[in-house]
Amino acid sequence: MLGREYPGDSCSAARALGIVGERWSLLILRDAMFRGLTQFAEFQQSLGLASNVLSSRLAAFVDVGLMRVEEHPSDTRRRVYRLTEMGMSLKPTLISLTEWGDRWLGNGPVVFVAEDGSEVSLRLTSAGGRDVSLAEVRALRRGAKEDSSD
Amino acid sequence: MLGREYPGDSCSAARALGIVGERWSLLILRDAMFRGLTQFAEFQQSLGLASNVLSSRLAAFVDVGLMRVEEHPSDTRRRVYRLTEMGMSLKPTLISLTEWGDRWLGNGPVVFVAEDGSEVSLRLTSAGGRDVSLAEVRALRRGAKEDSSD
Repeated sequence: MLGREYPGDSCSAARALGIVGERWSLLILRDAMFRGLTQFAEFQQSLGLASNVLSSRLAAFVDVGLMRVEEHPSDTRRRVYRLTEMGMSLKPTLISLTEWGDRWLGNGPVVFVAEDGSEVSLRLTSAGGRDVSLAEVRALRRGAKEDSSD
Repeated sequence: MLGREYPGDSCSAARALGIVGERWSLLILRDAMFRGLTQFAEFQQSLGLASNVLSSRLAAFVDVGLMRVEEHPSDTRRRVYRLTEMGMSLKPTLISLTEWGDRWLGNGPVVFVAEDGSEVSLRLTSAGGRDVSLAEVRALRRGAKEDSSD
């Protein structure tokens, strides 16, 4: 195992959670990704969270590059929040949470589909394309051939 | 898009985040999954979080079934926390966050490998095994052939 050979905070998952790990963040992104929401009032109606929290999350997303803000085409006082490629790239995280919830908490109301309508799922695969089981996947220090402390 | 045709809280990702969405939860699980940590003191040393928070997270994990608690083999006063299959099943979520962090925030210190040492990654695939792009994947109501409101 890796133990304390690297500091926890430099781990990419920890850094990612530093950006999207606050309460509501992933649900706001889900609404943008999969429900097509773009406006403050839409997010608020969907999630029912406090205005100041939503405002702070959206501002942080724009700041860090997960979203970009545009003027509403027909009402310049309103803003439109759109996911950037960086934000869209969190789709697998939302899909993995959904798949886990479906399996362990009971099927939810949605499935993910590709353009051709076929159902989409996340697979853990090796570089050669082989399916990898959850049990066998482990973390190694980048660049290490074998984990010496395991 | 799905809009408000289903209530946000019944969504599986939202329910999953209800269980693992609190601050520290996913990092505690990461330490259990990929660093082999099992004891209170180990998690605390790794993450540097307050005892009462760690204690509350571990108790909740046991309560909901993500971890089971055992006596330490050589010291019955100490407890050992082990991930259940339910807990282990969150590996793809941690891997997805790591992959995202690696891509957008710079490579972190670890890679994920299979038993044969080859690098592991998450792929979005259709039922037929085709790779699906992030752009094309969308959410449909379960059981719906086509999303009528899209």
